[in-house]
Parts: sequence; structure tokens; C-alpha cells
Amino acid sequence: MSKKLVYYFGGRRADGKASMKPLLGGKGANLAEMVNLKLPVPPGFTITTEVCTHYYKNDKKYPKELKPQIKKSLSRIEKEIGAKFGDKKNPLLVSVRSGARASMPGMMDTILNLGLNDDTVQGLIEKTGNPRFVYDSYRRFIQMYGDVVMGLKPASKDERDPFEVIIEDKKKLKQIEHDTEFTSDDLKELAYQFKAEIKSRLGNDFPNDPVEQLNGAIDAVFNSWMNERAIVYRKLNNIPESWGTAVNVQSMVFGNMGETSGTGVAFTRDPASGENVFYGEYLMNAQGEDVVAGIRTPLPISKLNEQNPEIYKQLEKVRKSLEKHYKDVMDIEFTIQEGKLYILQCRVGKRTGPAAVRIAVEMVKEKLISEKEALTRVEPDQLNQLLRPVFDLNEKELAVSQGKLLAKGLNAGPGAAAGRIYFNASDVVDSSKKGEQSILVRIETSPEDIRGMNAAEGILTSRGGMTSHAALVARQMGRVCVAGCSALEIDYSKREMSVETQNGTKTLREGDWISIDGTTGEVIEGRIHIRESEILQVLIEKSLSPESSPLYGIYSQLMKWADKHRKLRIRTNADQPDQCRNAIAFGAEGIGLCRTEHMFFGGERIDAVREMILADTLEERERALEKLFPYQKDDFTGIFKEMNGMPVTIRTLDPPLHEFLPHTEKEQRELAEKSGKLFEDVRVKVESLHEFNPMMGHRGCRLGIVYPEITRMQAKAIFAAAVEVKKQGIDVHPEVMIPLIGSYKELENQAKVVRDAARQVSEETGVSFPYSIGTMIEIPRAAITADEIARTSDFFSFGTNDLTQMTFGLSRDDSGKFLPYYVNHEILSNDPFVTIDSGVSELVKIAVEKGRKVKPNLKIGICGEHGGDPQTISFCNSAGLNYVSCSPFRLPIARLAAAQAAILSPSQKPDKRKRKTKTKTKAKKRRK
Amino acid sequence: MSKKLVYYFGGRRADGKASMKPLLGGKGANLAEMVNLKLPVPPGFTITTEVCTHYYKNDKKYPKELKPQIKKSLSRIEKEIGAKFGDKKNPLLVSVRSGARASMPGMMDTILNLGLNDDTVQGLIEKTGNPRFVYDSYRRFIQMYGDVVMGLKPASKDERDPFEVIIEDKKKLKQIEHDTEFTSDDLKELAYQFKAEIKSRLGNDFPNDPVEQLNGAIDAVFNSWMNERAIVYRKLNNIPESWGTAVNVQSMVFGNMGETSGTGVAFTRDPASGENVFYGEYLMNAQGEDVVAGIRTPLPISKLNEQNPEIYKQLEKVRKSLEKHYKDVMDIEFTIQEGKLYILQCRVGKRTGPAAVRIAVEMVKEKLISEKEALTRVEPDQLNQLLRPVFDLNEKELAVSQGKLLAKGLNAGPGAAAGRIYFNASDVVDSSKKGEQSILVRIETSPEDIRGMNAAEGILTSRGGMTSHAALVARQMGRVCVAGCSALEIDYSKREMSVETQNGTKTLREGDWISIDGTTGEVIEGRIHIRESEILQVLIEKSLSPESSPLYGIYSQLMKWADKHRKLRIRTNADQPDQCRNAIAFGAEGIGLCRTEHMFFGGERIDAVREMILADTLEERERALEKLFPYQKDDFTGIFKEMNGMPVTIRTLDPPLHEFLPHTEKEQRELAEKSGKLFEDVRVKVESLHEFNPMMGHRGCRLGIVYPEITRMQAKAIFAAAVEVKKQGIDVHPEVMIPLIGSYKELENQAKVVRDAARQVSEETGVSFPYSIGTMIEIPRAAITADEIARTSDFFSFGTNDLTQMTFGLSRDDSGKFLPYYVNHEILSNDPFVTIDSGVSELVKIAVEKGRKVKPNLKIGICGEHGGDPQTISFCNSAGLNYVSCSPFRLPIARLAAAQAAILSPSQKPDKRKRKTKTKTKAKKRRK
Repeated sequence: MSKKLVYYFGGRRADGKASMKPLLGGKGANLAEMVNLKLPVPPGFTITTEVCTHYYKNDKKYPKELKPQIKKSLSRIEKEIGAKFGDKKNPLLVSVRSGARASMPGMMDTILNLGLNDDTVQGLIEKTGNPRFVYDSYRRFIQMYGDVVMGLKPASKDERDPFEVIIEDKKKLKQIEHDTEFTSDDLKELAYQFKAEIKSRLGNDFPNDPVEQLNGAIDAVFNSWMNERAIVYRKLNNIPESWGTAVNVQSMVFGNMGETSGTGVAFTRDPASGENVFYGEYLMNAQGEDVVAGIRTPLPISKLNEQNPEIYKQLEKVRKSLEKHYKDVMDIEFTIQEGKLYILQCRVGKRTGPAAVRIAVEMVKEKLISEKEALTRVEPDQLNQLLRPVFDLNEKELAVSQGKLLAKGLNAGPGAAAGRIYFNASDVVDSSKKGEQSILVRIETSPEDIRGMNAAEGILTSRGGMTSHAALVARQMGRVCVAGCSALEIDYSKREMSVETQNGTKTLREGDWISIDGTTGEVIEGRIHIRESEILQVLIEKSLSPESSPLYGIYSQLMKWADKHRKLRIRTNADQPDQCRNAIAFGAEGIGLCRTEHMFFGGERIDAVREMILADTLEERERALEKLFPYQKDDFTGIFKEMNGMPVTIRTLDPPLHEFLPHTEKEQRELAEKSGKLFEDVRVKVESLHEFNPMMGHRGCRLGIVYPEITRMQAKAIFAAAVEVKKQGIDVHPEVMIPLIGSYKELENQAKVVRDAARQVSEETGVSFPYSIGTMIEIPRAAITADEIARTSDFFSFGTNDLTQMTFGLSRDDSGKFLPYYVNHEILSNDPFVTIDSGVSELVKIAVEKGRKVKPNLKIGICGEHGGDPQTISFCNSAGLNYVSCSPFRLPIARLAAAQAAILSPSQKPDKRKRKTKTKTKAKKRRK
Repeated sequence: MSKKLVYYFGGRRADGKASMKPLLGGKGANLAEMVNLKLPVPPGFTITTEVCTHYYKNDKKYPKELKPQIKKSLSRIEKEIGAKFGDKKNPLLVSVRSGARASMPGMMDTILNLGLNDDTVQGLIEKTGNPRFVYDSYRRFIQMYGDVVMGLKPASKDERDPFEVIIEDKKKLKQIEHDTEFTSDDLKELAYQFKAEIKSRLGNDFPNDPVEQLNGAIDAVFNSWMNERAIVYRKLNNIPESWGTAVNVQSMVFGNMGETSGTGVAFTRDPASGENVFYGEYLMNAQGEDVVAGIRTPLPISKLNEQNPEIYKQLEKVRKSLEKHYKDVMDIEFTIQEGKLYILQCRVGKRTGPAAVRIAVEMVKEKLISEKEALTRVEPDQLNQLLRPVFDLNEKELAVSQGKLLAKGLNAGPGAAAGRIYFNASDVVDSSKKGEQSILVRIETSPEDIRGMNAAEGILTSRGGMTSHAALVARQMGRVCVAGCSALEIDYSKREMSVETQNGTKTLREGDWISIDGTTGEVIEGRIHIRESEILQVLIEKSLSPESSPLYGIYSQLMKWADKHRKLRIRTNADQPDQCRNAIAFGAEGIGLCRTEHMFFGGERIDAVREMILADTLEERERALEKLFPYQKDDFTGIFKEMNGMPVTIRTLDPPLHEFLPHTEKEQRELAEKSGKLFEDVRVKVESLHEFNPMMGHRGCRLGIVYPEITRMQAKAIFAAAVEVKKQGIDVHPEVMIPLIGSYKELENQAKVVRDAARQVSEETGVSFPYSIGTMIEIPRAAITADEIARTSDFFSFGTNDLTQMTFGLSRDDSGKFLPYYVNHEILSNDPFVTIDSGVSELVKIAVEKGRKVKPNLKIGICGEHGGDPQTISFCNSAGLNYVSCSPFRLPIARLAAAQAAILSPSQKPDKRKRKTKTKTKAKKRRK
């Protein structure tokens, strides 16, 4: 361990600096940096995180060098301040605060006003002439120290805090309501009562010796690194225990020493809008906790310019200086003590999504940062906030305060939606025809519900996770969705849903209004009004011109830079022309996944599909498929036109056939009648198609292999559409993708069917067209045998949803019972259905390597839901993939994430090659 | 291509030899070998398989060197025989036969008596003085040639063979019944009628020129390599198309030239029993086809000794000579022509399981072969025939001939069983208590049926494959099982099953007798009597002493050698003391998989299990688990005692909890009453436990992680049992195995629970005991991250059933709809649930490599059903596994397969090391 354990800051220079966060913690490092920037920081010192590590490794003992170093630093503070620790006349008071490498707000302990005792109190009164302030500080110190350091807590959950009991008793006695009404003598009495309480409860005296007080406080802060809430917070935020905390001991300054004193917090720019204005609030004659506690209403920082222009000017200088230095928006805490400004803390300011974008873009224009830096300043997911419709905030707050918050589910499809409740898809469709807004409420959704999901403003389910059918489809459609809201009891037969709330059971019936917030997962009774995002108004609705939306301006600027710097191509998952339009507006460069099964629902199509499934002979089946052909062809024609020459990857039929059949007796009887079959035959067919594990059943290419006529019809529809579009002079690049390949022989089988169809269409029409045939890699065996598969494959597309399920042996539909437990207990660090898991990514790497060994230029992409996840995109970038594909509304996120990936971890390939060449050259030379 | 295309055999030496099978085919190579052995072989020549390959590669053209070589060889035959091809006085006749590297009986074409025409017929009559024989030969030749070479077939399916029509017409005309009643003139007329028919139907003359005949026949044989039935046969038997066939042209000899002529087939030993006696049958004055056709009953070969001791002596000499030379039992065809013996073919004789073992063992004793050779002479699966109960063959044949064969299912549990039908497990148990024999008939079985399956003679299901629950458990129990017999319609409510047969619908009711053959999959109406295998009578029933069973004697000898030569250890899958006893009798060296869930069924246990599942709180759950504890402890005590110090791997609870709950309302109501819960609560619980894909749901370690109290109870029961057994002076080695691990963190979590339990039991009892903790590798992610998992794991055991399912994304319960199609269409070369798939084995190799990298001595085994499959065992041997574990009744097979694996592909490790060292040394030298 390095011998320097204590870093001094104050006066003209500090021992530390901003880059020493691992050693000094965030607070300590930034305090040191500010001292070096000559900003007015109360002097103090930081005990390093190494001491914390030593403390825990050595049975809570400190290195012997610590005490002398603290003593020395304390003397420096005394010299600087001109006051003495424990001095009866001119006492120095200090604060003792934790400060870890990563911010852990409120998780660890803090002691203020340390150094007060019965003697120093007198000195401070003489010095300040303000006994009320001093006794108030004293009783607060005793209270805080008694709790945090000495451990005087309520004996049980039912008991109240002993200090608060004393305060309450005194208020009753004095017949007053607020603490502020206590006189100086009351507060003095309280201080002595507190000390007595500590003695009687703990058997220990409250320490009078300031050094003893300090040592106790340092112990307490280090101990708080391992308190329960800190441990939980670290786990939730992936902060390693080994980092440890630093301890900051800093001379106290007081904002409550009269009308020339005050305290405040400020951001160097508006953290909500990003506007380049000084933003913050303050209170005169107050301490930091008063601002936080909300007892008095703080004033906006601009007021300070009127009240105290001198201080305001100083603060403005600090603001400029910090932004110039840190090149980012900073969040500062300041105190004014008797007309003198002190900065107590600074850190990078948290901001909303719109603010993040605006700040990043404007800072480039101000030449503070580069484009690349700007791109790294926005969390990709923050872009969601720019795109989503939002509730009117006031209305929502009011509703919540009125107890209308019913429950919280998973925030599966961001945005806000309100509408009337309907419990089945066709009612939603009917309702939307009437011009109503509606919310589709289902226990869970299935492909049959697609049209209803499309017609609804939003989707609410009581089962299923972030990647359930509802969530998946909703995100692709850009529908608002709250999924897996298990508090809801949905009763289809009664057409109602009920939920237990604090105010008893609430029941909502069909037609009732509900509001769902897919960004937060909140489900609220009644109607809250919605505002559409400006960016969508420009891009999709075209109701706003680009020039008239500043928000759109900064968004499009950031996207332009992202496109310039990223290496990955960005495609979208879409299977309808309107989705394609949206996707192109959001920057799609092609379709990575067009699911053909979504086209199989609706009106006559589903009838033909069912006819095909019920067919007893090949001939019957082909007759049914012939009916489907024109629909499929039209679908593809529409998509090819919209995509206007961009590559379109179309996946052949994937889900098991039973998903297309009705499951109630009534529907089965109807189907029997429609199709001229016996009800019993229909029932038997449905039963015979039942599967124990449909996820691993007769689906994907396994369908197309047993029923090649299905693949043939789909391939012919694709190519016939291509011909039609080509005849209209539009470029077209269909890529036929075979799902669920496990063995190269499956792909050979299906590729032959597709190639035969292409030849046939080409011969029949006399038009030739380019096309390619590739496969999903979504089964572990496909990844392991990717070299074999690559021989027949023009491209790979990782279907990471299924690949994750198979690699983990984990059904996402069933994982609700244990996956949350796993994530909470850190058995999994992430939900593997959101961010690609390390084991799954290992398989991806194996497949990329094996595939490219056979075909060095093999085009490889990802089309699972992970394709829109920034961490996964970063992995895809470094794994050498060519593109990612995601739902239209995640495209901006993917573009930004791809740019960040390219900037932060540039592909290693060129370097490697260089290195290899060098080695070879060297080797050659050596041989010579 | 080598210039030698034709290999001559005959006289004193042949061009070829036995080892040239790839070039000459099996028949040709053996004919050559026999010539070299100086056995009496009619001279002839073989056209090589290379000619076949050339033929198909060059648009059915022959290399130009072929014709001259054929001509030259033909002259050599003429010289040898003293007859001339096409000679009017002394014509040479030949046969033309196919002969591929592997035997493909009946798949390709054969032409006999080639060389006959209107002229040579006369010469032959003169030579033999037997016009009837000659004309019969002639009309047969024309018939055969017209069909095979000239292609005269019935024009449609409905039409009869034109030659047969002519024969039938003539019979009617002559008012005779049998061909044998035709006179010489009749046959002559037939010959001419046949030729006229050919001319009229095909427009071509029947070729008179023997050389033209020969060329046509050679074409026909080569063409038959690609006929449909040959292609199908090759696919089914994994014979590559590229091998091609050879063509054998051999001078004809005739067994039908009077009473001093004859023909026969013989085995050098009895192929049914293996006894060292000459075994075969013959007919005098007959051709080979007469023996096969069964018109006359052939005589046993021993009769020949009486009839013609001279020839018999010669045959005995041939027999001795062949066995001595080939060191194996040979199957020969012979013909006696006018008192002279000719051998027409020899090949290794097919034999039954018992014969294979007896022959192998006795040949070692005779010093013909080595122990290692003997071990490779028995197909491991043939051992099944030594162990299984069998039907009385006569009774069975009678029943089948009476139309009592109802259907055929999968031969899932070998053996024969007869009993009364019961449709649910408890009825079977009741029936067995009454001393009845019963067959449990279910649509499919579940763990609830275990006791019924145990009590039944056999199990019959209408759904599920070779590795369905029924099949799996049946094999482990050694129960006879026919699974997936989809022809059966089972109606639980009516307590009957029906099946469509050729004789209409047959319905069997509860209590009716049925017989099922688990070796063949046959389901037969009525009762057929059973004979238990002798070996089981010795090993399991102990009703027979080892000395009194010769079958047991040879079996145990072979097993002794197998144990001596194998490298893999052999364990068993067992979870009951009686299974352990059986397993030890069959040579188990430990338990590789003890499934604890099977112990959860039955009487009070299942009540406690259900109580545990229904529990709302941890306390309730622990109370229920406490009730289970003594049962589990007793289970393990029993097993440890039986295993007497051998290692026992116990898997903690694996199946999803819903498998333990009842699914009918009636049962749920009963359960509610029993457990003091509301029916509605029980129903809701059952529903809440329903899973979409239970295979990938809340099971395995995922249960133990969310409910650590389950693992804790099981671990404590294991260790408490270990202590008890240890106190009795019996050695004990429990290995606790955690199932369904996907991440090392899961294993760490469960290992901690197990270690804590061990410590607690040890502290409470004061007894210490050895134990280890390991994991199943049955999820792809576990294989991929095996290095991480190995750190916490004392051993790995591959659960290849689930690993196959997950790696393929293939639910074995649902694969029935496409897996048979896949295997039939060669998309998969094998059922991956029977023999380990190449992709799955790649994952196994990755896991072995990664695991041993972290722990070089990591113990690794396999406990999936594949552990009893010989091909998989061979893979396990070469992959460096330590042991395989299989069901008790497959243990002998596994022991033999392991010995064969060790003998045929000795582990490469030592060699590799050596080679490496060498390379290093060389490299070092070079540097110097």
C-alpha cells in the first residue's frame, strides 16, 4: 500500500486531482480539482479508498501511518481557516462524508458540525453572536452522531426514534408546532436531553473530545460501506465491493449564519431542457438540508442576481470555469457564509434525454467538445424520451395523488396511451372503426391478436415478460405496452378486470377509460391526455416541418454524426409497408427481419391458412396455398416498393401451425362449418398439433421440410413480387432467410426449394433478379456447425431471442418464476433477453469465426430483440458483425449505440493484421 | 484409373484376394480367396468397382481397356473348363452377378445360364442327355434376361407378369398344376413363346449372340446399382453411392443334372446356438433357387454324410479350411454337379446374439482368435438377446397367423411380456397385489405412474418416442415397453382401446389379455407364454446356478474379457435398492445417476411433496420437507448399503413441480381436502405452475435456488444416510449432482447449500464423511462456460438427453412429427436421442477441454440415455471421459462397447504426447 493515505485540498493547491477518482472517490477528486482551479473550496482532506480496503482486510484496523497524516492535514486546515479544532474560543468545525468512486447518493453516512462540545459551543456563540444557530447546530450534531456513530436507534420497528420522541415531547410541553419555534434555550435543553438519553440508553458518554469525535466519525463512514442498503445499492448498480469508499473531512461553512449567508444547488445548464442557462435554486439563511427538506421554498438562481449580484457574478464565473474545464454540464453545491461563496461539491450533472442531446450538440457548436465526444455524452436509451408520446405531467400527478394508480407492470413498450378497455382484439378493431381510442387488455397476446394490437393505442397484459409476444410486437409496431402486470385479475367472461389497491378492490369494465405509461409501467385509472413527441410529428406524421422543431434539429444533427462514425449497418424488423416507412424515417438501411407469419392473419387469409393446415392431402394443401399466394405477393410488393432497393430479409414461415388454429369449441365449430370438415376432425387436428414444448417443436424450417409446398409458395410470392417491382423500375434485393436451421442439410433442402422457385418465376416472367439465401443462427447446433452451414448460406442472421432460450434452456414465457430472482440475487448480472449473455455471445463468436473461415466475406447480422440493445450492439461491433436489425422505434438508439461502439472500441481487426504482418517480417529477417 | 479392370479367379490361383473387397466387392474377393485356398471354385472373373465408378462418371461408357480384358478372361475360363462360349457342341454357360463391398442381398440383378441360345441348347442336350433340364434352363434364362436386361415388365400395376401369364395359360391348356409337371416339349414351347412375346412387346429380338448377351447382362448389373431399391437400401445402411458394385462372371455349374447333383447352403457352425457343428441344408437334383423357394423340403447337412460320404468329407474339409483361414464362422453356398463339389460363395456368417457370444468365446479357447478379436466379434446390442425374456416362438407364430397382431410400435424396452390390460397405474398396482400379470396401457406416462410401471409386466403407450418417459423408465427398470404405438386409440373413460386392423376395428377392454414384444415393437392380442432368459435366472433370480447354465458361462467369460480391456468405467442409472442389486449383478461400478424425484411418489410421500408445493410460506414448506426427510434418508441408506462403497451420484430434484400435482378436478378436490386448503387455491396453484415449455422452465437447480430448503433437505438426507451407513462399517461415497446448471453462479449457490448441510450433519453426528459436489452438463451454456463451472465442480456428468434437446432446439416429446421424416430423408443420419449427434459431441468436446484446462483431473462421465449406446460409448472413450452410466439392463452392452472402443480406437493421448515431445526435440536440435 502506498504510504500517502491522506490527500489535502485547500488554499492554492490540492494533493489530488479529478483523475484520481479510484483513490479519492468522486467527491474528493472533484474537490481537489476545484482547488486546483482556484475555486473557493473550504479546505479539508480525503482519506483514500485504499484505507477502506485495508480496514476491511485487516479486521477493521487502520494502517499505522494514518493517524499522523490526519493530524498533519488537520493542522493545515487550522492554519488555512485560522481556527483550531477543539479550541474554546475559535473552534474549527468539520464535516465527515463518504465519497466512493461511483456516486451512491444517501447510501452511506455523513456527520456535520463535528468538533462541537460543551466548551466549543461557547466559543462559537461568541464568534457568531448567534446562540440559537449554535445550539441548533449542536443538538443536530449530537442527534446525528448519536445515531450514526454511537448507534442509538429505535429498539424495535414499532418504537419511534428516541431523539424525535424527545423533540415531540418538548413541542407538546411548549405548545408549539414547528422546530423553528424553539428558542435558543429550548435547543440547548434538547442538546443536554439528547446526551442524557444516549448515556442512559447506551451506557456511554457522548464524547466531548473533538479528536475522539473525528475518529468515531471516520470509523462510522468506513463501516457504512458495508451497511445493508449500500450493499444492495452496489449490487443493483454493479459497483464492486472492492472499490471501497474514501472519507472526506472538510471544514464547515454555514449558510444559516444570517441574511448574508445562504446555500444552494445549481447546474451549469438546464438539465431538463439542456438550454444553456444557469439553472438552480437557493435559500438565504439556510443549510443544505433545508433546501432538500422542502420546508421553505427555494428561489430560482436568477433571483440571486438581484439579491446579491456580487455573489451571482462569482457563481457565474465558477459555472464558466467548470464547464470550460470539465467540458460538460456540472452540478454544484454551494454555500454563502456571511457574504463569502464556497463551493462544496461538483459533479457531472444528470440530465434528461432531450437535454443530453441538446447539450451534446450545442457543446460541439461551442467547440467545447468534438463530434465523437458528443456522441458518447448521450445514453442511447435516453433517445427514447425524445420519441415517445408523453402524458400531460400535471394531469398524471393529479391522478396519482387521487389514488388512481392501479398497479405497475413491465415497461415493455415506451410511451403513453389512454383509451377504453377492450378484452379482445376484434372489439378493439370495432372500437377503432368508431373512432374510439382503445387499450387492448389481455392475459397474454398471441399472433391472432395482431390486428387488434395494431388498432389499439396501447396493450396491457397480465402475463409475460419484456420479450413476450405482446412486448415484442408492441415495440415493433411502436405501440405503448405494459406487460406482465400480474396484479390485474382479468376475467374475459365478465369482460372486466380487477385489482387490489390500498383503497380496496377496484374493478374496471369494458369501455372504461384507462391510461398506461409504457415508459414507467404505470397503469392508471381514467383518462390522462397525451402529447405526441415533436420528432414523431416531423418524421412520421409530417404535421410539423423540420425547421420549426428545435428538438428535431438537435436530434437530426446527433443522428448525422452517429451515421458518420458508426461501422455497423442498421436495419429494421418490419413486415408491413407502413412500418417500413417509419423505419426509413428513423434511418433504417434495410430490413433485417420480415416475419411472414404476421401476414397470415386477418379475414380471408387466416381462412386459407387454416384450410392449408386442415388439408388431408398435398393437393388440398396446395389449393389452399394458392389462395394465399396473391396476398403474400402483394405484401412483398408493398414492402419492396417502400424499401426502394434496400436489402430486405424475409423469413419463411416460423411458428408452429397450431398457433393459427382456434382453441375454443365455438371457434372450432365455426371453422368446421366454413371449411366443410367435421367438427370432430377439426378438434382432432388441433389436438394432434398440440405440443409439450412448442418452442422446440415442429416449427421453423422443420415445417418447410415436411411441407415443402409452403416454402415454395412463399418463395414464389417473394420472387413474383420482386419481378413486379422491378418492372416498375424499382431496384429490389430480396434475401430469403430460413429459420431454425440446426443442420446444413436442412438448409440445403430448403435452399433447393427456394432456388427452384426463383428459376421458375424467372422463366415464367422472363425477368431475372438478384436474390440470396441465408439462415437464422438461433439454435446452438447451428452456431457450433456454422462452418458446414456457411457453405450453403449467403448470410447469417443471429436470432438471439431463440438462441438465448436454447443456450440457457430457458423459456422466456416461463422464466417469470425465477428470472427476476436470478437477476435480483446476481446469479445473472442482466436479463439475458435484454442484453446478450456472455455464454450466448461466446456461441455467436464461434459461429462468426467458423462461418468466416469458410466464407471470409459472409454477411452477418443480428435480428433478435437484442439488436436494439446498446450493450449488445457494442458486442456486435467488436464481434465483426455487418449489421444489427431492430424494431423501427429503436433505430435511433441503435444508430447512436453503433457509433459509440465504433468510437469507444474500434474494431481490432486492422491492428491485428498489421501486427501479424510485422511478426512475419521479423521472422523472415531472423531466418535470413 | 488402374489399367487392370478384370480380375480372374480359377484353377490354381486368382488375381485377387480377400483383402481387395473395395475393388472386387465381397463376393469377388472371397471367390478369389477361396481359389487361392485351393477350394473347388468354378472359374470366373470379377469386373472391378472402379469400372462401375467410371461408368457412372462417364455417361454410362466403359473404359476402352475393358472389352479386351473380358475377352481374355473368358478364354481362360474356356480353357479351364474345356468348353467354349457360344459353342454349339460344348457350350460354356456363365452366371453374371453383382457384388458390392457390403452385402446388399437381393437389391441388384443376377443373370444365370447366360450363353444359351437356340444353337447351344442343342449342344448342351447332347452333352447332358437331359433335354428337360436344358429347356427348363433356357426358358428360365430367357425369362430372367427378358425382365432384367431387356426390361419387359408388366405395363401397369394391375397387369400380371407377361411370362407368368404365358405359363399359367399353358398350365390351363395342359390341365396341370405345377411347373414340374411340364414336359421337355412344353418347356421348349415356353422358351419360344417367351421370345415371341419379347419381340412383340419390345420390338427387339432376343439376342442369340452369347457375347451380346454377356454385354447386356454386365450393363444390367451396373445399372442395377442405381435402381430404386438399391438406393433406398444404401441409404438405410449408410453405404456410400461412391463405392459402386463389382460384376462377377462365373462359369455355371448345375445341381439339377440328376441324382449325383445337388445344391446347398451351410454354416461352419450353428448360427442360432453357436455350437461347433456343421450346420446347413441341401437338396439333390436341385438348383439354388429351389432351396430358397421352399417347394421341396431340404435335408439337414448331416444326411449328406449318409447319402454321399465322399462329398460330405470334402465339404467338412472346406469347412475346416475356411474357419482356419478366416478365423470366423463362414456361410457357404455349394453345388454338386455330377458328383463334383463346387463352392460358389463364402462370406462371414450372420448369427444370433447367443451364437455370437458362444462362437467368440469358443474360438478363443480353440486358439483361433485372441481375446481382443473375440470382443470385436459380438455386436454389443446382440447381448440384449441373451438377457431378455422371450415369447414362446411357436405360440407367437400361431397367434400372428391367426391375425392377432394388432399393431407395431417402437421397440422401446426389449423383452416379451403378457398380461391383462389396465389403463391406470393404481389399477395395475391393485391387480399385481392380486397376483395378476398386467400391462399398463397409457396414452403416455408421467412420473405419477412410476409405481404402476414397476408393478406391470410391460408398458404400452400410444404416444412418445424411444426416449419418452415411458421408454426411459422402462429401460431403467428393465420393463418391457412398446411406446408410441400410434395405431391405438385409447379411451380412458371407457377403459378400452381400439385399433383398426385388416379385419376391422378391434376393441380391447380392461382386463383383456395382451402380449407385447419390446424387442420388435409388436402388440398381439391374447396371451403368449414367456420364457425368462437363463442369464437373468442366474444373475437376478438366482434360480439357476452359474455352473448349470452354459449360456451364462460364455456370457460371463466375454464380460470378464471386456472388463479387462476397457478403459471407461461403467456405472448405472438407478434409484432403488433392487435396481442397484441388479446393476451390480450386471457389472455396475457405481451409480452415475440416482434420480431423487422417483422417490417422491407413492402414498404419504406424494402427500408431503404436494403439501410442500402448496405451501404459502417458507415455514409451511419446511414443515412439509421435514416429513419427506426420513423417507429420503431411508432411500439413500438402502442404496448406499447395496452399493457398498462404490461411488453414488445423486441428483437433486429436477422436474418442474407441476409434475407432482394432480390435474383432474376430482383429484384436486381430494388434495384440497387432504391438505386443508380451498379447492380454488389448489386449482389456482396448479394453473400458476403451468408452463408453456416445461422443458425449459422452472426445474433443475432453478428450483433449488428459489427454494433452497428443498436442496437443503435432500443434502441432509444424503449425508444423514451416509453417516448411518458408515456407522455400520460400510464405506460410502456420495456425489451430489446439481442438475440444469447454466451458469457457475447457480452451482456456487447450490454447492453452498450442500456444503452447509454436510457441515451441519457432520457436526450434529460427530461423524465425518467424504463427499463431492458436481454438476450435470446438459445445457449448451454449461458446456460453453465449462471452465467457469469446473472451478466449483468436482465432477461433470453429461446429461445428453437434455443437452441434445437444447442443442437442437428439439423437444423429444414433440419430435415425432418430423424426426422420423428427417431420419428417413437423411437430413439426420441417426436419431440424435439414440446415438450422440456430431454437433452435440462437439459441445461435449468443448466442455471436456475447457473443464480439464481448469482441473486436469476432473472426473467426467455421461448419464444420459446415450450412455448405453455403443457408438456413443466409442465417442466417450475417445473424448477422454472417465465413465459412462446407463440403465442396469444395458450394462453388459456398455461393458462390451467400452472394450471394443478401447481395442479399436485406443485413446490418442499417449501417442499425441509422444509426438509432441518428438517435435519439440527435433525443433530444439534444429535450433542448435
